[in-house]
Amino acid sequence: MPIITLTTDFGLADSYVAAMKGVILGIAPQAVVIDITHQIAPQNVREAAYVLRTALPYFPPATIHVVVVDPGVGSARRPIAARAGEGFLVGPDNGVFTYALPAGQPAACVHLDKPDYWLAQISRTFHGRDIFSPVAAHLANGVPLQALGSSIDDPVRFEMQPPRREPDGSLHGQVIHVDRFGNLVSNLPGGWLAGRIWTVRIAGRQIIGPSLAYAEVAPGQLLTLVSSEATLEVAVRDGSATERLGVAAGEPIEAWPRAM
Amino acid sequence: MPIITLTTDFGLADSYVAAMKGVILGIAPQAVVIDITHQIAPQNVREAAYVLRTALPYFPPATIHVVVVDPGVGSARRPIAARAGEGFLVGPDNGVFTYALPAGQPAACVHLDKPDYWLAQISRTFHGRDIFSPVAAHLANGVPLQALGSSIDDPVRFEMQPPRREPDGSLHGQVIHVDRFGNLVSNLPGGWLAGRIWTVRIAGRQIIGPSLAYAEVAPGQLLTLVSSEATLEVAVRDGSATERLGVAAGEPIEAWPRAM
Amino acid sequence: MPIITLTTDFGLADSYVAAMKGVILGIAPQAVVIDITHQIAPQNVREAAYVLRTALPYFPPATIHVVVVDPGVGSARRPIAARAGEGFLVGPDNGVFTYALPAGQPAACVHLDKPDYWLAQISRTFHGRDIFSPVAAHLANGVPLQALGSSIDDPVRFEMQPPRREPDGSLHGQVIHVDRFGNLVSNLPGGWLAGRIWTVRIAGRQIIGPSLAYAEVAPGQLLTLVSSEATLEVAVRDGSATERLGVAAGEPIEAWPRAM
Repeated sequence: MPIITLTTDFGLADSYVAAMKGVILGIAPQAVVIDITHQIAPQNVREAAYVLRTALPYFPPATIHVVVVDPGVGSARRPIAARAGEGFLVGPDNGVFTYALPAGQPAACVHLDKPDYWLAQISRTFHGRDIFSPVAAHLANGVPLQALGSSIDDPVRFEMQPPRREPDGSLHGQVIHVDRFGNLVSNLPGGWLAGRIWTVRIAGRQIIGPSLAYAEVAPGQLLTLVSSEATLEVAVRDGSATERLGVAAGEPIEAWPRAM
Repeated sequence: MPIITLTTDFGLADSYVAAMKGVILGIAPQAVVIDITHQIAPQNVREAAYVLRTALPYFPPATIHVVVVDPGVGSARRPIAARAGEGFLVGPDNGVFTYALPAGQPAACVHLDKPDYWLAQISRTFHGRDIFSPVAAHLANGVPLQALGSSIDDPVRFEMQPPRREPDGSLHGQVIHVDRFGNLVSNLPGGWLAGRIWTVRIAGRQIIGPSLAYAEVAPGQLLTLVSSEATLEVAVRDGSATERLGVAAGEPIEAWPRAM
Repeated sequence: MPIITLTTDFGLADSYVAAMKGVILGIAPQAVVIDITHQIAPQNVREAAYVLRTALPYFPPATIHVVVVDPGVGSARRPIAARAGEGFLVGPDNGVFTYALPAGQPAACVHLDKPDYWLAQISRTFHGRDIFSPVAAHLANGVPLQALGSSIDDPVRFEMQPPRREPDGSLHGQVIHVDRFGNLVSNLPGGWLAGRIWTVRIAGRQIIGPSLAYAEVAPGQLLTLVSSEATLEVAVRDGSATERLGVAAGEPIEAWPRAM
């Protein structure tokens, strides 16, 4: 049973997500549709790209991932689909697959320009229902990627500010996601901090770490640890680091090796 | 695999929705249960009717739609089920199927009065779990509609104020839904506006349109366009029209043809 | 098709829940994964235990229930699994199964200490994905409970303050849950109130009851009734009792028999 995941900024109060599922099951009744999230902040393409990145490695390789965070719907932005390993990506060509289709790696990618694989009526504002859902369902049914559109080799990718290591041993990155608990997830790889103790600096505060678990500190205390995404995270035990520090995604974070 | 959809005002924090799914899967293990939404405003039967209407056309014809927005639960209001095309509707008889069972069209409809098809224990406050879910599951298993209750021909429908065209060419309707993005969805059919330019009046503002896509105007700008439901919509690009204009469902909206 | 339910405090904005589903479907593609809720208040083990209790009776007996409300993740708290009837419970050993594994009843229970049944990489902060999801999927595949860990007989249970009946006939309990409608659900068994009229006292107010249905009183009026969980509930028709009375879970509630 092919798996199709959905990541959108539609929320759950309207019928938008359900309409997509109805379209998919009408074309591919055997598909299993799994929500990644529908609570991407409206039009926040970068957040969608990040959330998709964190979910991708945990799905079977043949999964089809549909992302509809699409502020340019109805304009000249292209609808695209791409092969990613044994699976597929389907969505608008606006950078939402920046992590999933890394630059420098060859990827089969098509501009979805074959209306035979869309709904008969195409709205100007809801390609998630009218183009991306039917295309994903046809992929689930075994239609080859190349049948769905013309090959392209220039999918849009947004620029990323990679984390860096300075000659003095310090590490410099930024918060790239705030989760539901208020944990601040950074882009500093946990592996860079292995084997020694660090002073982490964020928002004028200094935290010695990383700790090994939330429970290592007292309730309400600030700590750092290596997150479930294997990057450095700043948290408050049984509390919210984003509230405590008053910072959000984009905030700089540094780690300095402590003298032994 | 039969599809059963759920539309309720239960929210997602309690176990109400899960209890319904458990009951359904216990009776019809092969059913695929799809959420339309559980975030209908509490007891808002009209909103539920509208959201169901927008989802219905996108599901396979044999789908069974269950709606539980049921302020009269435990009172004399009837539990009902009805045939809708190849599929079925199941829920309280309070107008929630006003759009799905249009007046003037014959429809097979029953008063659910056969407890053999309910849970053994019936609570006073949760017929969604105790009556509607088991009935939907039995329908999925092929039990005929007529076995589930006595035929009725007077399901409750609420009055609708239809949009109208005046002899001077002006169009008069109202906002019937505000979606998660703050877009104001009206009941003015998009087809009425085809082929010319209009001045749309709402909340003391005038907007020239309709535009063809959100991206046709600058970020933050007010626009009108034909929505994904094929009716006239008022939106703010990358923003919220309901916040900008301070209006909600029920707000009058007019469109006047512009002199060429 | 085995059913696996999920109850967490992860919310729906991040990809945590989806990662669990991806892991489960990768190991047990035939599993049907059903959300109970992901909106348990962060780290609120008692609320999770209560919500699970209300859903459990409505699922088929062979269902596998996974709960991840896990403030002690990464510490010495044990990951556990237990047989519950024909089904299974999987989660942290922190009291979350207090209702589902009643004290005094023998239950097969294991400390999950066999990494062969986990993901290859175990994070310090997300055992829901790395341990509990793969264990649930292996149970769905028929792996015996005893293969997953060493037997234990002391799963953690939190203390409960049971409701009590006084010799004068009065009933004393507390609010144990507030639902999405603002209804106050108590732990007073509805059966204790059968057959006579009572004065219910809560927050300095007196309510004569129980009523048989919300619709028995006028909109906006306070009432009591026997809830869908068969316990005494305090509600406001078409309104919120938690807002009206300004009380939350833990609030004492009493019922006094009325002179005939």
